[in-house]
Amino acid sequence: MTRQTTGASTAAAPIAAATPAVVVDVDILERNVAAMASFAAKNGLALRPHAKTHKIPGIAHRQVAAGAVGLTVATIGEAEVFAATGIEDIFIAYPLWVDERAAGRLLALTDVARLTLGVDSAEGAQQVARSLGAAASRVAVRVEIDSGHHRSGVPPLQAADVALAAASAGLSVTGVFTFPGHSYGPGAAAPAVADENAALSAAAVSLQDAGFTELEVSGGSTPSALSSSGDTLTELRPGVYVFGDAQQWELGHCRPEDIALTVESTVVSRRTGPAGEPRFVVDAGSKVLGTDRAAWATGYGRLLDHPDARIVALSEHHATVEWPSGQDVPPLGARLRVVPNHVCLTVNLVDEVLAVRDGVAEERWAVAARGRNS
Amino acid sequence: MTRQTTGASTAAAPIAAATPAVVVDVDILERNVAAMASFAAKNGLALRPHAKTHKIPGIAHRQVAAGAVGLTVATIGEAEVFAATGIEDIFIAYPLWVDERAAGRLLALTDVARLTLGVDSAEGAQQVARSLGAAASRVAVRVEIDSGHHRSGVPPLQAADVALAAASAGLSVTGVFTFPGHSYGPGAAAPAVADENAALSAAAVSLQDAGFTELEVSGGSTPSALSSSGDTLTELRPGVYVFGDAQQWELGHCRPEDIALTVESTVVSRRTGPAGEPRFVVDAGSKVLGTDRAAWATGYGRLLDHPDARIVALSEHHATVEWPSGQDVPPLGARLRVVPNHVCLTVNLVDEVLAVRDGVAEERWAVAARGRNS
Repeated sequence: MTRQTTGASTAAAPIAAATPAVVVDVDILERNVAAMASFAAKNGLALRPHAKTHKIPGIAHRQVAAGAVGLTVATIGEAEVFAATGIEDIFIAYPLWVDERAAGRLLALTDVARLTLGVDSAEGAQQVARSLGAAASRVAVRVEIDSGHHRSGVPPLQAADVALAAASAGLSVTGVFTFPGHSYGPGAAAPAVADENAALSAAAVSLQDAGFTELEVSGGSTPSALSSSGDTLTELRPGVYVFGDAQQWELGHCRPEDIALTVESTVVSRRTGPAGEPRFVVDAGSKVLGTDRAAWATGYGRLLDHPDARIVALSEHHATVEWPSGQDVPPLGARLRVVPNHVCLTVNLVDEVLAVRDGVAEERWAVAARGRNS
Repeated sequence: MTRQTTGASTAAAPIAAATPAVVVDVDILERNVAAMASFAAKNGLALRPHAKTHKIPGIAHRQVAAGAVGLTVATIGEAEVFAATGIEDIFIAYPLWVDERAAGRLLALTDVARLTLGVDSAEGAQQVARSLGAAASRVAVRVEIDSGHHRSGVPPLQAADVALAAASAGLSVTGVFTFPGHSYGPGAAAPAVADENAALSAAAVSLQDAGFTELEVSGGSTPSALSSSGDTLTELRPGVYVFGDAQQWELGHCRPEDIALTVESTVVSRRTGPAGEPRFVVDAGSKVLGTDRAAWATGYGRLLDHPDARIVALSEHHATVEWPSGQDVPPLGARLRVVPNHVCLTVNLVDEVLAVRDGVAEERWAVAARGRNS
C-alpha cells in the first residue's frame, strides 16, 4: 500500500485504519475554528456555529473556547447531546412542530441551557406556547425569514405577524434569522449576502415598528459568512467551515489545504473507461460520503491529493474515479484521501472519526449526535 | 395531528414516535420475503439476499427461514454482525483488498460461517491468498463479472484468467457473479437480464473450459430478479425487495402496497411556490432519506398516501413537497409517510426502526450492521 503523493497538497503519512475511515486533521480544524472566530470578532459579529456539521462535542467546545456565544443545531436531539456536555446557549434553528413529547424534552433542556427556537408561522408559535403551557416563557423564539432560498421561513414583511402571534401566545421574541442557502453556487455568495441583508433588515425594521427591541439579526452560511458585516447582522451561523468540503473547494470558499476532513479509502478495482481512459474504484461509497451532488459539482467528491481526478460514479461501496491520462494509475491497495462533496452528510454516517495530527491518529472522537434527527 | 387519508393506499393508524421515524410494516415485509423465496424455489434458483439493504438480523433470519441459502453482504463488518447472530453462509460480494488486519477478521469469520469472497483481479486474488497464508483454503472465491454496469468486475472472457490466478494462489474458485446495476432505469430490466445471462454464461463456460467445475452462477438485482431464470443462473442476490422503495415503485417493480418501509414525518412549514402552488416542508430530510435521485426519478422520494405529490427539494432536515392543486393541503403538524428513493441509504442512517403491525408499533429493531462500512 502506498499513499499517492503527486497532487497539490502535502500528503500525510498513511493512516493504518481499515478503510473507508473518516479522518480529521486537528491542526487544520483548529486553524479553521480560529479563523472564523477572528473574522466574527473583528466585524463585531457574534458567532453561533451550526453544530449539525460536526455533531462532535470536542469540536463544539473548541468553538466556544475560541469565542462562540453558543451553538446552532437543527434538532432537539442535537441540542440534548450538546447540552449534556455543558454547552449553555443553544438555538434550534428549525420550525419545530412542538407536540407534548417535544415540549417535555424542551423543558428539560431549559434546566441546563439558554434555549431559543425558530418559528415561521403563527400556528407554529402558538403550538409551541400551547405545548409548553406555563413554561412558555422559558424559551425564546426567533422568526425565520426566507431570504431567497425558498425553503422554510416567511417573507420579511410577514415577520411581524409571526412575532406578534408568538408574543401574544406568551413567547419571548428575541430576533430574526435566515439561512441564505442560495449562496451555494458559482458566483452566488455575493448576491445571496445582498439578499440576506435586505431581507433581515426589512424584517428587523418591521419587528421594531411593531415594538420589539434588542433583536438578534442572525444569518450566515459558510459560503456567505466571510462576506457578512456587522452593518446588518448581529450574529453568524456557519457550519461547514470547520472542515471544508469539495463543495466549498469548488466554489472557492476554501483551499485544499484548509480541508480538515477526508475519507481514507483503498483502491479495490481497476479498469478502463469507454474511451480507454484509466478508471478505478475506491471503497468510499455513498454510505460514507453521502450522495449530495450539486448541478455545478465536478463529481461525487474530490481526491485531495489528485485535483485532476474526477469521481464519475458513486454507489454504496464504490466510488469510480476517472484518472488523468498520462499520470501513473494508483495500484490496487493504494490509499487515497477522498473529500466528500457535503461534509455534514459524511459525519452523520459514521459513529466515530479518527483525530489525527501530523498524519498520526491521536484519538477517536465519537460523533455523539449522529442520527439525532428528532 | 392528523394522518392524511386521501391517497391511494390504506393509511395506518398514527405512529406516536417523534419524527422523522423509520417504520417497517412487518406484514408487508414478511409477504415480500415469502414472495421472493417462492419465486426462487419455483425457478430452481438459490436465494442469497443482499443484507446491505436491511442490516437487521431479524430480517436475515426471516429470509433464511423462508429458504435463503445464506446472505450476501458488502463488507467484512456486515459479515461479522450477521455471523454473530448465527448466519452460517455468507458471501462478501465485493473485491476486497485484504491486508493483514482484514485477513485476521476473515479468518475469525471462517470459524463460524462458510465464507466466500468476490475477486475481480489476479492481484486482488493473490493478495487474499498472501494475507491468509496457510489458511487460504478456508475461504472460497467467486470471480466478479462486469455484465454492463461498468463498476467493478472483469469482462466475461477475462474471468478465467482471474480464476486461474486465484487457484494458483491456493484459493478455491466456486463460481462467478455479477450485479446487473444497469437494470435500474425505465425499461432497463429486460435488457439488463439479457446482458447478465450472456455475460455470466460466457464467463461460466470459460471457467469450465479452464477446468473449473460445480460453479455457482450468481446474479440478480431487485429490478431484474423476477425476470431471471434457472437456465443460466444458479443463484439470485436481490436486496431491496424486502422493503421496496420509490425507485422500485417508479420503475414498476413494486406496487405502493408492497412498500414495507416508510419514514413517518411531520409538516413543519407551509408556503406557496413560484406559481402560487401549495408547498410545504416535512421534517424528513437527507439525513434520514438519503440523497439518491436517479435522472428518471420524479423527486427525492414519494408520499405513500399521496401519489400525486412531489418532493421537489431536499436538504438535511427539510423535504419540500409540491402539492397537487385542488387537494386540501395538510395542516402544520400533520403526519405523512415518505417513501425514500433508495431504501438501503435510509436504513443505514438510523440506529433502529419501528416494527409495526396493523399500524401499531410492536418492537424496535436495531440496525445492527449500520455504518459497518469496513
